[in-house]
Amino acid sequence: MNIIKGGVTTPKGFLAAGVKAGIKKSGRPDLALLYSEVPAAGAAAFTTNRFKASPVKVSMAHINAKDHQAIVVNSGNANCANGKIGDKDAMKMTEVVGKALLLNKNEVLVASTGIIGVYLPLGKIEKAIPELVGELSETKGARFAEAIMTTDTVKKELAVKIKLGNATVTIGGACKGVGMIYPVMKTQKHATMLCFITTDAAIAKKTLSASLDEAIGDSFNMISVDGDMSTNDTCFILANGLAGNRQINAKGSDYRKFTEALKLVTSELAKKLARDGEGATKFMEISVTGAKSGPDAKAVARKISTSNLLKCAVCGEDPNWGRIVAAAGSSGVDFDPDKVDVYLGSLKALSNGMSVKGLDKEKAHKLFAKKDVHIKVDLKSGRYKATAWTCDFSKEYVAINSEYST
Amino acid sequence: MNIIKGGVTTPKGFLAAGVKAGIKKSGRPDLALLYSEVPAAGAAAFTTNRFKASPVKVSMAHINAKDHQAIVVNSGNANCANGKIGDKDAMKMTEVVGKALLLNKNEVLVASTGIIGVYLPLGKIEKAIPELVGELSETKGARFAEAIMTTDTVKKELAVKIKLGNATVTIGGACKGVGMIYPVMKTQKHATMLCFITTDAAIAKKTLSASLDEAIGDSFNMISVDGDMSTNDTCFILANGLAGNRQINAKGSDYRKFTEALKLVTSELAKKLARDGEGATKFMEISVTGAKSGPDAKAVARKISTSNLLKCAVCGEDPNWGRIVAAAGSSGVDFDPDKVDVYLGSLKALSNGMSVKGLDKEKAHKLFAKKDVHIKVDLKSGRYKATAWTCDFSKEYVAINSEYST
Repeated sequence: MNIIKGGVTTPKGFLAAGVKAGIKKSGRPDLALLYSEVPAAGAAAFTTNRFKASPVKVSMAHINAKDHQAIVVNSGNANCANGKIGDKDAMKMTEVVGKALLLNKNEVLVASTGIIGVYLPLGKIEKAIPELVGELSETKGARFAEAIMTTDTVKKELAVKIKLGNATVTIGGACKGVGMIYPVMKTQKHATMLCFITTDAAIAKKTLSASLDEAIGDSFNMISVDGDMSTNDTCFILANGLAGNRQINAKGSDYRKFTEALKLVTSELAKKLARDGEGATKFMEISVTGAKSGPDAKAVARKISTSNLLKCAVCGEDPNWGRIVAAAGSSGVDFDPDKVDVYLGSLKALSNGMSVKGLDKEKAHKLFAKKDVHIKVDLKSGRYKATAWTCDFSKEYVAINSEYST
Repeated sequence: MNIIKGGVTTPKGFLAAGVKAGIKKSGRPDLALLYSEVPAAGAAAFTTNRFKASPVKVSMAHINAKDHQAIVVNSGNANCANGKIGDKDAMKMTEVVGKALLLNKNEVLVASTGIIGVYLPLGKIEKAIPELVGELSETKGARFAEAIMTTDTVKKELAVKIKLGNATVTIGGACKGVGMIYPVMKTQKHATMLCFITTDAAIAKKTLSASLDEAIGDSFNMISVDGDMSTNDTCFILANGLAGNRQINAKGSDYRKFTEALKLVTSELAKKLARDGEGATKFMEISVTGAKSGPDAKAVARKISTSNLLKCAVCGEDPNWGRIVAAAGSSGVDFDPDKVDVYLGSLKALSNGMSVKGLDKEKAHKLFAKKDVHIKVDLKSGRYKATAWTCDFSKEYVAINSEYST
C-alpha cells in the first residue's frame, strides 16, 4: 500500500474539471466538477454545526439516492446563512449540472466554501456550467483540486493503490481548507474543509459509509487550524466499481484492506491541510497514549492541538511545555496528573507529573525549532491512544483573517 | 450601589503589601500579602483543570479551616507541574507567613501565577517575607494589585459600598490575568486569573461560598482571552464582619443585596481582565438571548467569545459576521437556526437565519471600528440569556506568547 502521485481522476472512470466562474474577486478558478462515467455508490460526512450551509442541506438529502455520478463545487462563497434562497440556489446547481450530464438532480452532490452570509452569484455559476461540463477530462484532476481552493497556498491531492483479490483498486482524493478548521463530521449527519474521494472499488453503499466513518474519525476529525468549526465541512466518496473486485459487502478482510487504504488517503490529506494552515510556519503532531478510552485519547490530543498559547510558543520556537500540561488538564478527561509524562520529540520534560530537573533547554529549543514538531503525552492511565495534527499560530494568521471579507 | 475608587484595603480591617522578591527576571514586584486584622470567613473558587498547581492544592485544603486572616501570592512562577516538591514549597509559603503573623498555616491561603514547570525559588520568597509583613498597611492596596501582575498592562482594582440595615458594607477587589484566560472555576473545587476580594460584611462562611459561586458564574466564568484554561485560576474572598451588619446566614434580602454587590465587583473586575487581554486593541461583549436554558445561553456566548476567526475580524475592523453564526452553531446547543437574529451593535445582520439584504456595510464597519464591540445573538428559542466578554486577537498576542519563557 503506497501513496502515489495522483488525485480524484486516478481511479478508473472518473473525470474532473475546474473553471473560472467569476465568484472570486481574485479571478482565480472557483467552480469545479467531478464525474463518474458509470453510476457510483456515494457516501458522505457532513459538519455537525447547527448552522448548516445550504449545499450541506441539499447534499444531506441527495446522499440518500441509490447512486451518484457528479459533484459540483464552488469556492469563494459558502452559501450559508442565506435561508431558503440559499437552499434554492444550491438545489439549482445540482439541477443545472444534472441536466447537462443527463442525471437526476439527486444523483448530483454539491459543496461550497468561502464567505458566509453573502448570496450566491447563481447567474455566474449557471453561465459557467456548460464550459465546466465541456472541460471534463481524466487529465483535469489537478485543475479540480485548484478550483476548490480558498486561502490554501498549495493543491492537496494524492492516490493509493491496493490489491483486492486479483483486482487493483485505486483510491484518489483532493481536499481544501486551511482556515475555520476544526472538523467534527459524521456520516449522514454533518468542515470548511472539503474533501472529495474517488475509488474504482466495488463496494456496497452502506459498507462504504461505514468505512468512511472509520477513516475520518482518525483523520479529518483530528485536525485543527484555529479551532473554529465550519458550517460547510463535507467529505464525499464515490465508488464506481470499475476495478472489477468482488464487491465488498461486509466487514471482512477486503473491508479492512480497503478501509486501511482509505485511512491512509484521508490522514495524508488531513495532514496536508494542517501543514498548509493559514499563516502556518510549522506542522505539529500531538500523540496521546495511555488513555482510558479512545474518545478520552482523542479529547486530550484535540484539546492540546487547539491551545493558542502552545501554538504561539511553537511559532516562537519557545519550548514552553507547561502549556501542554495546562491544555491536557482542561480537556475534561479523567486521568491522574501525578502519573503523566510529556515528551518534546524524544526529550522528556515532565515525568510522573513533575518537571524534569536539569532539562536540556538548548535541546528543547532545537526540537521546537524544527519544521515538524512532535509532542507526546503519556497519561499512563490505560491502553488507548490518538494523534491530532495542527500548525503553529503566527502573526500571519491574524493578518489573513483580519482582512478576509473587505 | 456604586463603584468607588479603592481595592482590597477599602473595607474595614484589611491591610496589604507588595514587594520585590526577585522571582521575576524584570525585577518588578512579585510577592504580595493580604491580611485581615481579625479572623474572617473565607471562601474560594478554584480552577477545574485536572492539572492543579501546588498552591491550588494547598488552598483547597486550607479553605476548610473555620477562619482565615492572610493570603500570600507570588507572580512570575505558577508552581505547577512540580509534584511533591511544589506542594511542599506552597505549604512552606503558608507556614512562613503564618509564623510571622502568629497564625496557623491553614489560616493562610496561597496563590501563584507565572510560568508552569519551573521550580519555585523558595529561598528568595522566604527571605522577602519579613519585609512583606513589615510593609502591611491599609494604604498598600494598589501595591498588592501591582505585585500580582504578570503580562497585565494595568492594575485592576475597585470597591463597592452598600447599605445593609444601618450598616455600610464595603466590598473591595483586585485581580490579574490577561493570558491563559478561560476560567471555569467552582467553589471548593477548582483560572491563571487570580482574584482577591475583601469585605467587612458579617456573613457566614457557607453563605459566603454560595454568594461567591453565584457571582463568578456570571463574571469570571464568562470571560476569555485565548480559550486556554489555567492550572492556577483562583478567586478568594475574605469577610471579616467589621461593618457590624446583622450576620447574613441565609438567602434573604440581605443575601440578595450582598450578592448583587459582589456580582458587580466580580463582573467589573472580569471585564477589566478581558479589556487588558494580551495584545488586545478592542473589548468585545457578546450577549445571547432567547436560549432554552441558562447553561445553553452561556455555552453559546462563550463559544462565540472564543472564536479566533471572529476575534481576528474585530481586530481588523472587518464586520465578517458569518463567523458569529459558525461559532454559535458549533456550541453544541440545540436551537432552530432558521429563527436566529444577529446584531452588530444596533445593526441587524441576520434575520430569521437569513443574511439581511442590503446590509449597510459602512455602518457595520464603523461598529467594528469602535473600541467596544457589541454583538448580540437572539436565538428566539426560549427566555434565557447570558453575556460573555473577550478582546480581539492581534498580532501582538502572538508576539507576547511566542517570546514568554525565553
